[in-house]
Amino acid sequence: VNSYRQALSKLKETLGDSKVFDDPKILYAYSFDASGLSSGRPFCVVRAFSREDVVATLKVAHKYSIPVTVRGSGTSLTGASIPSENSIVLDLSPMNKIIEVNVVDGYVVVEPGVRLDDLNSELAKYGYFVPPDPASSSTCSVGGCVAEDAGGMRGAKYGTFRNWVLALEVVLPDGETVFLGEPVMKCRQGLSLLHLMIGSEGLLGVITKIYLKIWPLPEKIVRLLALFNRVEDAGRVVAETRRNGIIPLIMEFLDRNVLKFVREATGLNLPEAEAAIIADVDGPSEAVWRYAEKLKKMMERCGAFYVKASDDPSEMEKLYTARRAAYPACLKLRPMPAVLIEDITVPPSKIPEMLKSIYIIAEKYSVPVVVFGHIGDGNLHPVIYTDPRKPDLWSRAEKCFEEICLAAVRLGGTIAGEHGIGLVKRKVLVKELEERKSLKALELMKKIKYVFDSKGIMNPGKVFL
Amino acid sequence: VNSYRQALSKLKETLGDSKVFDDPKILYAYSFDASGLSSGRPFCVVRAFSREDVVATLKVAHKYSIPVTVRGSGTSLTGASIPSENSIVLDLSPMNKIIEVNVVDGYVVVEPGVRLDDLNSELAKYGYFVPPDPASSSTCSVGGCVAEDAGGMRGAKYGTFRNWVLALEVVLPDGETVFLGEPVMKCRQGLSLLHLMIGSEGLLGVITKIYLKIWPLPEKIVRLLALFNRVEDAGRVVAETRRNGIIPLIMEFLDRNVLKFVREATGLNLPEAEAAIIADVDGPSEAVWRYAEKLKKMMERCGAFYVKASDDPSEMEKLYTARRAAYPACLKLRPMPAVLIEDITVPPSKIPEMLKSIYIIAEKYSVPVVVFGHIGDGNLHPVIYTDPRKPDLWSRAEKCFEEICLAAVRLGGTIAGEHGIGLVKRKVLVKELEERKSLKALELMKKIKYVFDSKGIMNPGKVFL
Repeated sequence: VNSYRQALSKLKETLGDSKVFDDPKILYAYSFDASGLSSGRPFCVVRAFSREDVVATLKVAHKYSIPVTVRGSGTSLTGASIPSENSIVLDLSPMNKIIEVNVVDGYVVVEPGVRLDDLNSELAKYGYFVPPDPASSSTCSVGGCVAEDAGGMRGAKYGTFRNWVLALEVVLPDGETVFLGEPVMKCRQGLSLLHLMIGSEGLLGVITKIYLKIWPLPEKIVRLLALFNRVEDAGRVVAETRRNGIIPLIMEFLDRNVLKFVREATGLNLPEAEAAIIADVDGPSEAVWRYAEKLKKMMERCGAFYVKASDDPSEMEKLYTARRAAYPACLKLRPMPAVLIEDITVPPSKIPEMLKSIYIIAEKYSVPVVVFGHIGDGNLHPVIYTDPRKPDLWSRAEKCFEEICLAAVRLGGTIAGEHGIGLVKRKVLVKELEERKSLKALELMKKIKYVFDSKGIMNPGKVFL
Repeated sequence: VNSYRQALSKLKETLGDSKVFDDPKILYAYSFDASGLSSGRPFCVVRAFSREDVVATLKVAHKYSIPVTVRGSGTSLTGASIPSENSIVLDLSPMNKIIEVNVVDGYVVVEPGVRLDDLNSELAKYGYFVPPDPASSSTCSVGGCVAEDAGGMRGAKYGTFRNWVLALEVVLPDGETVFLGEPVMKCRQGLSLLHLMIGSEGLLGVITKIYLKIWPLPEKIVRLLALFNRVEDAGRVVAETRRNGIIPLIMEFLDRNVLKFVREATGLNLPEAEAAIIADVDGPSEAVWRYAEKLKKMMERCGAFYVKASDDPSEMEKLYTARRAAYPACLKLRPMPAVLIEDITVPPSKIPEMLKSIYIIAEKYSVPVVVFGHIGDGNLHPVIYTDPRKPDLWSRAEKCFEEICLAAVRLGGTIAGEHGIGLVKRKVLVKELEERKSLKALELMKKIKYVFDSKGIMNPGKVFL
């Protein structure tokens, strides 16, 4: 208790009162993130405006061995940004400057608190973008995207954030700063600490500056909507596109219930179907309609009863809104107070089987499950409804969650495509590695964590059980 | 000595005489790689035909604490595959099976000894390829490409091998096997051991199986040749393409002397110029000529006195041969018996300045230097001629090498784009990290090395001084 008091006064002394908060109402607000979970009440909140603020905070935390949870916009769906009991929440959202847009050298430099959509609005002025697009892009911070290796709809074509990070400035747990990578397209520096840092969920240090590769915006996009009477038919489309050498910019899946929720939440006039696919093909204006027609035929071959392709901006915007609204609509219209959201990813050829398994498992545990996701890269987000006040239902939902994860692993896939492990997937990560006879990997990770953070102060309780 | 004898008989007993070699002539042959360096005579050579062979070898090496250097085709230009004195060379070239081409799931599974061109020939049957294309692609092994995070001409558009690895089977130094990643487009498993392993130059374990993402072959390519009277004018082309939102498939630079060497070595009828750029633009057939014309105009704006674009296969092949022949021609016609090859990478806007610096530094030390490289991603390969039998010349060449590296670092670039650190760049890696005030990174790397390999048997002497 005494060391906490000392730490607090040291923080206030170094950073100034205006950046350090211990008002219980503020602490309460910071004890949640978008996962809906809460694991503990922080001891204080530091709002960092600069690398120096981060260094000062970590030095105090290190000295007094107080846990630190870094937070950007708090949009983690796995609880990665939830503080543990009596920790410091290090809020980087005030570090929100776009430092440099360097078109000729192909990169942008940002502070971690910049919101992804703000970054892409700025880059659009130059005809460029950073392609990964998590559904939370209007809110989520770029720092969070890097720390969680976030993905999104364009993953099949453009990968996740890992593919776009050139260099990082990182403050290590003891307050020392390192610069990893260089702002160039190719860089080798021995063992890649840069890539170890990407996706490390706040376990190794604090990212204070980010160099991202930028890419020319697609010249032209044609958007397609395809409707299916059978979920498995929709599931077959991805394999069909691969067979034909087409990688759509996005290919999104919504099942009957998600379609219904979106219709009700947005008022959009969407047709009824067992499943829908929304896909974008992009390319030069001379060729993009040829791709669109080809994709249309593939969808019909797979059994779509309706396919429409359009390059009309308002029509396209409507479909995009429908997909973006999927998760919010699932939350808004949820039949129960809480959800568990999956992030499984399977090889495209296994999508039909995976979809079937999901509904069978949901029925087995009598838990409502709706499914949407980035079917183009095999990444599905089944939403499992539950109620924490009903222990029996909660336990069935948890079992359902775990069994869906394991089904994905057994189909050669993973329990986590882009949301990270956080709190929610710690147990299923062990199961996945167990299934691959690779529990040793977990041991190695823990030892690496110790190399960076021997006091164990960085985001304790996350990733590892 | 006794433990070496025991180890040898154990290896022969477990693996069979036909896979274990200690004939001095064979040991001599294995004490070099394409870097031209030799650091020591191995104690024996094991030719591995399977993961089981690798496991057996590592168990013996681990038990008797004998160093192991893994080798694929030995095409490392930095000495990464050179054995240290009295080590075991673990030759993976017999593990050369393409295990599975899975077009619908977008990946291929190979053993590490598969040659890159063989892999791409097989994939071409399906209309796919693995894009990174080191100049040694006819010889180099895929395992080496992953262990060295190899790049090549297509780096600006498609990155290095890191961007194409989905999963790896790895045998750890104590003989235990782990599977890292999954054969899917997005996968999160906590701290990324997968990406730590990529580019780790044999320091952490032995890669025994590789899952690579595959990509549709370009629909159509137009190739351009541009000639310049001033090297700096050629250097300005890359920034100009970025400004116009074009990322060519390849953009290669050859200076006056490299052009001359290529002409003499290949008999190709290439014009004289201070500098040449060979560039490919790719895309759908409807649009690719529009890009080519646009690029042609940019090159002219930058000062090219001659630009020709062609989609005629024989004309295109001629130019490709010219570029591929650059390094072999530099070796064949070298005015001196040895070379040091650079692998610096700078931001594109700094290329003109970098080129100027290279020639100034070469003159300062009176060392012949010729320059070619992947200018599209800022990756230049100055070739420094020298002679190990002339200590003064050798020392000047080394100083020239180091000063060019540092010039790149000071321009915001790196000492190593795609060749790795190996033996040759250990000192300049320290300099680069020193310049970035990040020597701590080197400490962390060494500790991580220890986490994987507490006995220090994996490729000792490489990467770290």
